[in-house]
Amino acid sequence: MLMKHGMNSRFAFLDYAKSCTWASSPVFRRQQFLIRSLGSCSDQQTKYNKMQATKSLEADAENILRTITPCLDLSRHKGQAGKIAVIGGCREYTGAPYFSAISALKIGADLSHVFCTKDAAPVIKSYSPELIVHPVLEESYSVRDEDKRSISSKVLAEVDKWMERFDCLVIGPGLGRDPFLLDCVSEIIRHARQTNIPIVIDGDGLFLVTNTLDLVSGYALAVLTPNVNEYKRLVQKVLSCEADDRVAHEQLQSLAKQIGSVTILRKGKSDLVSDGETVTSVSIYGSPRRCGGQGDILSGSVAVFLSWARQHILAADPNSNSSISTKNPTVLGCIAGSALMRKAASLAFVSKKRSTLTGDIIECLGRSLEDICPA
Amino acid sequence: MLMKHGMNSRFAFLDYAKSCTWASSPVFRRQQFLIRSLGSCSDQQTKYNKMQATKSLEADAENILRTITPCLDLSRHKGQAGKIAVIGGCREYTGAPYFSAISALKIGADLSHVFCTKDAAPVIKSYSPELIVHPVLEESYSVRDEDKRSISSKVLAEVDKWMERFDCLVIGPGLGRDPFLLDCVSEIIRHARQTNIPIVIDGDGLFLVTNTLDLVSGYALAVLTPNVNEYKRLVQKVLSCEADDRVAHEQLQSLAKQIGSVTILRKGKSDLVSDGETVTSVSIYGSPRRCGGQGDILSGSVAVFLSWARQHILAADPNSNSSISTKNPTVLGCIAGSALMRKAASLAFVSKKRSTLTGDIIECLGRSLEDICPA
Repeated sequence: MLMKHGMNSRFAFLDYAKSCTWASSPVFRRQQFLIRSLGSCSDQQTKYNKMQATKSLEADAENILRTITPCLDLSRHKGQAGKIAVIGGCREYTGAPYFSAISALKIGADLSHVFCTKDAAPVIKSYSPELIVHPVLEESYSVRDEDKRSISSKVLAEVDKWMERFDCLVIGPGLGRDPFLLDCVSEIIRHARQTNIPIVIDGDGLFLVTNTLDLVSGYALAVLTPNVNEYKRLVQKVLSCEADDRVAHEQLQSLAKQIGSVTILRKGKSDLVSDGETVTSVSIYGSPRRCGGQGDILSGSVAVFLSWARQHILAADPNSNSSISTKNPTVLGCIAGSALMRKAASLAFVSKKRSTLTGDIIECLGRSLEDICPA
Repeated sequence: MLMKHGMNSRFAFLDYAKSCTWASSPVFRRQQFLIRSLGSCSDQQTKYNKMQATKSLEADAENILRTITPCLDLSRHKGQAGKIAVIGGCREYTGAPYFSAISALKIGADLSHVFCTKDAAPVIKSYSPELIVHPVLEESYSVRDEDKRSISSKVLAEVDKWMERFDCLVIGPGLGRDPFLLDCVSEIIRHARQTNIPIVIDGDGLFLVTNTLDLVSGYALAVLTPNVNEYKRLVQKVLSCEADDRVAHEQLQSLAKQIGSVTILRKGKSDLVSDGETVTSVSIYGSPRRCGGQGDILSGSVAVFLSWARQHILAADPNSNSSISTKNPTVLGCIAGSALMRKAASLAFVSKKRSTLTGDIIECLGRSLEDICPA
């Protein structure tokens, strides 16, 4: 119908639409959104047609997970299965960075570090001797104005010492919103980009990048993992409109593209993943329990699978017909991480029901991985 | 072929070899290495012939472990089954000394101490009430230059109070690389030598002794337990060449001899043990999981078995035909420690697969020992 009329202006289209009986239908509202998010350029219709072509497919998540997970081999040595670092943990929050870092280990990474504030370190260390916890970040309350510059340099130097050893950083779990700390973390993100280290951004890290988009804009190795509210804020900031579930796929694709082809894992009943080119959903498994901390498991999981996907693609025979080797490793990492997290949550729920806590889900990560991809 | 030509100069040999068709063969490369590591002395050929006699045998590790493990006896009292101390644990690392010290207890030592920095002590204590944790070490950041001398003496006095009670020290797990702290630990090593206490050196302890070889040089009760990278650095420093897997056994023997007949346990797919006289491999069991911390279990295990091997040899009837009683206790300790660690890792892997963490392996130490050597 639209095509027949061949309208060029979105206002003409809206006037026309209002007069129709289907003006209040879901189809119409969807079209309205698309037109709004496409802006006011002249060849609106062409863009609209392109957007209609957006297809979201349910990922073959188990197959992807199996393909990118490296074989265990007696000749490999420590570190080759992944070295992950979580940047997070402050006076207020200590659980989130622990959940993220320990999940990375439980999935099969060899080493998992946490860079947190001095107050948070002894507590995070006490949760588990398996993590390497660096008490290097500082919050405003412990820093005098005149020392900020030198302390910021010191913090950055401490993280830089390690930077090149990591296969992926997770930025944000339990980070808090202290302005001085977030300034230091902004610098850490810039250094990670310069070193080409993938970054997964969650929690307060999303608060930071939503307000300073150029930190990740155009960085193809950045993954954002927003929940419903974090996603709403991102959409408002980037697309200048409200998040709309009726056009969830198109909106996500548009958002990822607008931030310069970062990958976004939008958490929800189904998880949606887009790098601005494709939109994929992960709907298998899952649990109705919504205890806090599950997002931290997911960020740690995505970090490990993203690292493995990069390794897999780098090692793949360029002449092979493996379709996975041509995919974006950040998208593969999100799909595998989402699938594993959902599977672990569903197993934990079967045994713990309403009393399921995040720790119970972490305890199911190993069995979930083994069920999908036996070692 | 070499024997027939009877060449005396390594250069003549190399020139000759280059002209042969087998110049690029593994055999030739191995010979080249041997000649390089033997130096440029005049009777090169004799030395080379000796090196060719190097034989590495797979250890009868289970039998050794059974023989040196003391019988449990109701009349024995606390301490007789071993008193171990770990020197390690700083602001950054707390897991490693815990893993080492708790492993010693789980294998059967009666008492396990940790000497660490003041920051690390509360955290290590929080991991387990089973350990005795001494907050005595200091890092540069907490010491003024003018106080360094007096604080160093104080640290040493604190450790010395206990020194003679220990059957073995483990030096290095989670030690860090702070220069002041390493200076204190150098003094602790010197005192341990004077007191004839065996020392197992791992992690940052290896960083220290690689840079200051005279700390262990010529000390027959010293054991070094390098991983792949630590071994590379040792070879570069001591033999002035690169580590070469094709001549792994000869190189290890040469290295141990060069450092004055210390014992080296080279960790890898097979563990190799040499005291400069013999080379033995331990290949039984094992796990493909390479999570950080497994080296700490090994250092704690070697410390216990080394103590037991010394006790066994001291108590053995000199007229008996036990071949084990004539062996080097440090080599026996390494073989038994390696075998037990590999067995525990394999049991943990059977149940936990990819999600196996170091703590899971420690939980399998008891059952592994019981399988090999029932109490």
